[in-house]
Amino acid sequence: MAHMHSPHGTPPGPQPIPGVDAIIAIGSGKGGVGKTTISVNLAVALARLGHKVGLLDADVYGPNIPLMLGTSATPQIGDGNRIEPVDKHGIKVISVGFLNPGDKPLIWRGPMLHSLIKQFLEQVHWGELEYLVVDLPPGTGDVAISLIQTVPLTGAVVAATPSDVALQDARKAIEMFRQVKVDILGLVENMSAFHCPHCHQEVDIFSKGGGERTARQFGIPFLGAIDLDPEVRRRSDSGNPIALEGEESEHAKAFYDFARRVMERTQAAQAAAGENVIQIQ
Amino acid sequence: MAHMHSPHGTPPGPQPIPGVDAIIAIGSGKGGVGKTTISVNLAVALARLGHKVGLLDADVYGPNIPLMLGTSATPQIGDGNRIEPVDKHGIKVISVGFLNPGDKPLIWRGPMLHSLIKQFLEQVHWGELEYLVVDLPPGTGDVAISLIQTVPLTGAVVAATPSDVALQDARKAIEMFRQVKVDILGLVENMSAFHCPHCHQEVDIFSKGGGERTARQFGIPFLGAIDLDPEVRRRSDSGNPIALEGEESEHAKAFYDFARRVMERTQAAQAAAGENVIQIQ
Repeated sequence: MAHMHSPHGTPPGPQPIPGVDAIIAIGSGKGGVGKTTISVNLAVALARLGHKVGLLDADVYGPNIPLMLGTSATPQIGDGNRIEPVDKHGIKVISVGFLNPGDKPLIWRGPMLHSLIKQFLEQVHWGELEYLVVDLPPGTGDVAISLIQTVPLTGAVVAATPSDVALQDARKAIEMFRQVKVDILGLVENMSAFHCPHCHQEVDIFSKGGGERTARQFGIPFLGAIDLDPEVRRRSDSGNPIALEGEESEHAKAFYDFARRVMERTQAAQAAAGENVIQIQ
Repeated sequence: MAHMHSPHGTPPGPQPIPGVDAIIAIGSGKGGVGKTTISVNLAVALARLGHKVGLLDADVYGPNIPLMLGTSATPQIGDGNRIEPVDKHGIKVISVGFLNPGDKPLIWRGPMLHSLIKQFLEQVHWGELEYLVVDLPPGTGDVAISLIQTVPLTGAVVAATPSDVALQDARKAIEMFRQVKVDILGLVENMSAFHCPHCHQEVDIFSKGGGERTARQFGIPFLGAIDLDPEVRRRSDSGNPIALEGEESEHAKAFYDFARRVMERTQAAQAAAGENVIQIQ
């Protein structure tokens, strides 16, 4: 009776994080489609648009967010033994890369990862956030499932490139989110058209348009296409995500359009969840 | 005494597959670097160079090899209840995609995958092979480790793109193979230079040269750079890997150079293993 949270009780289902309004996961059926680039630039764009934003790098096998944000800080332990997220480019960041810097791989089995993610959610002092963006590991494996079962997700974004091979895997990710009853906010097509910086002609390196087609086929919203732009990659490699350039930058604009669609879809998902509560009454 | 292999005995370590000379795993620290494209074109190139080749698609979460080879055949059950691999483009192929076609994801936990992979190795009728190429799942997780512990690997190839982010993950893959004592045949850089098909100028979309630098830094052989070529992607999406064009094709040549280096390094690894046996005597 005295303690609301018994440490030895039955593990509860996903519990809301106090103070965090919306938790949005970025997933992909396949790695290398730019899921982390999308997560980082979404977080930066939301922050630049005036929101309080957190970013959780849950890609335990490839935690590239510290590199993309240009930070190798160590999170400090604050009041009540809570982990303080690192503040960078106006967003609160936690990454497994902070705990395991350097080249050593995390050769961990599923259950260990589950408890790590739980700790990241429950023991990190996120404070007041309007959006917590979670960069999931790619694929439909153990870690993605553990995460989905641990985090009370408002919704998920599926990232894909337009190649047939990447879309084949994206369809699997859509089916995974459906099976575990996570609302899919929509699909974003990354590495879409490429414009040669020399002759300005368009080259469909990874094809084009397949993302929108796949979204239509599965009846989920299409959240936009982001061009394959060497400047985006350079800015990621240098720790200064392109979205820092602001909405007016031609290289960053697509990320802001995408961020606005994510905001709209998140509000719709929150409103629908509210309606469900009323229906239960 | 009567049975050499007790089904209930202590599980043995990796056991050679009778008739298979060399087993080569293709791994990557990160998905989407073209590991499967490299596996498929390596297998086709080795076959075109006159070798008996098998290809095992062990990327259980993204089994794209059937799509890239243009086959959706179902393996038949042959003599002695053994699974007959599918014959395509002159190589013997087994993929989890044959067992699980369509869009349903394989939401399986580690131990189930372990037994699936064991079955693929022990119950498939591979016959006489000079090379069995194994397309590992990306990353350093459960499945990659299970595989490495199950398959008696001759050596591993690490695939990476030249971006800093991909190389950060490639270093983790190198360390993983070292920790589990797998001989690293070398590193291959994929999506290297891009030449605009319109103006023929070079664009470093994913950067360039980082693969060779990383190989040198870790003291492992560099197996070559493969350009980012839209024709390679188109051929993969259409089920006719570019290596089918033969060594004279400008789009395929880099894969043949890479295949020859893999052959040399495999022979060196086999010779070194032979020497070790002599030293023990």
